[in-house]
Amino acid sequence: MASIFSRIVAGEIPSYKVAEDAAHYAFLDINPVAEGHVLVIPKREVDYIFDLDDSELADLHVFAKRVAKAIKEAIPCRKVGMAVLGLEVPHAHIHLVPLRSEGDMNFANKLSLPTDRMSEIAKSISDKFDKE
Amino acid sequence: MASIFSRIVAGEIPSYKVAEDAAHYAFLDINPVAEGHVLVIPKREVDYIFDLDDSELADLHVFAKRVAKAIKEAIPCRKVGMAVLGLEVPHAHIHLVPLRSEGDMNFANKLSLPTDRMSEIAKSISDKFDKE
Repeated sequence: MASIFSRIVAGEIPSYKVAEDAAHYAFLDINPVAEGHVLVIPKREVDYIFDLDDSELADLHVFAKRVAKAIKEAIPCRKVGMAVLGLEVPHAHIHLVPLRSEGDMNFANKLSLPTDRMSEIAKSISDKFDKE
Repeated sequence: MASIFSRIVAGEIPSYKVAEDAAHYAFLDINPVAEGHVLVIPKREVDYIFDLDDSELADLHVFAKRVAKAIKEAIPCRKVGMAVLGLEVPHAHIHLVPLRSEGDMNFANKLSLPTDRMSEIAKSISDKFDKE
């Protein structure tokens, strides 16, 4: 069965999309640890990120760098942090989180944002990404 | 002034080295969140990881993948997780952490391991890396 992320890429499940290219997709984490928390995935469904081929892994991170640049322009922060946990959804994904302090990447501390705020954040990041 | 990590690479400060190539260095985190917690750095001193050139960023992650493979062979775990926080030491570094459950990547939960255990862990990962 397709992973929930593959179903998001296919448009079967809605998402707050912020960026996409032929091989990658980026969208807001529905349970963010901070405003502007984005998930970046390869469209190819691989469970463990380090099972990607070297070139796929490299391309994924270069795409994530472009998304991180857009996040940093759209969301006030010092840096954009990155994490790959990977024991929940069996489809490799990179968390990108705007950081103001080390504690901002605390996955035990989830926010619940209204849908119109989520749409607004997704659009602000997407606008910066498209302008590259 | 050189970062503490550049001084580690230069051998001015000791470290529990697990892997090295021309452009990268990997060593045990001195305040690990789990046994086998490794830091991977580019030798070139750059504060923010996303300021690396695309090819440097790609090479760093391909090197980190090789280190993660060695960690997974040396330390019992389900996957090796990854994080870049980057608000402490101003020299880009990837945390690689053996994961058994999501909670294993909790940076508020540091271990203090005896030096002989640290040496043992470093050697076990280094041995797997060298065999590639």
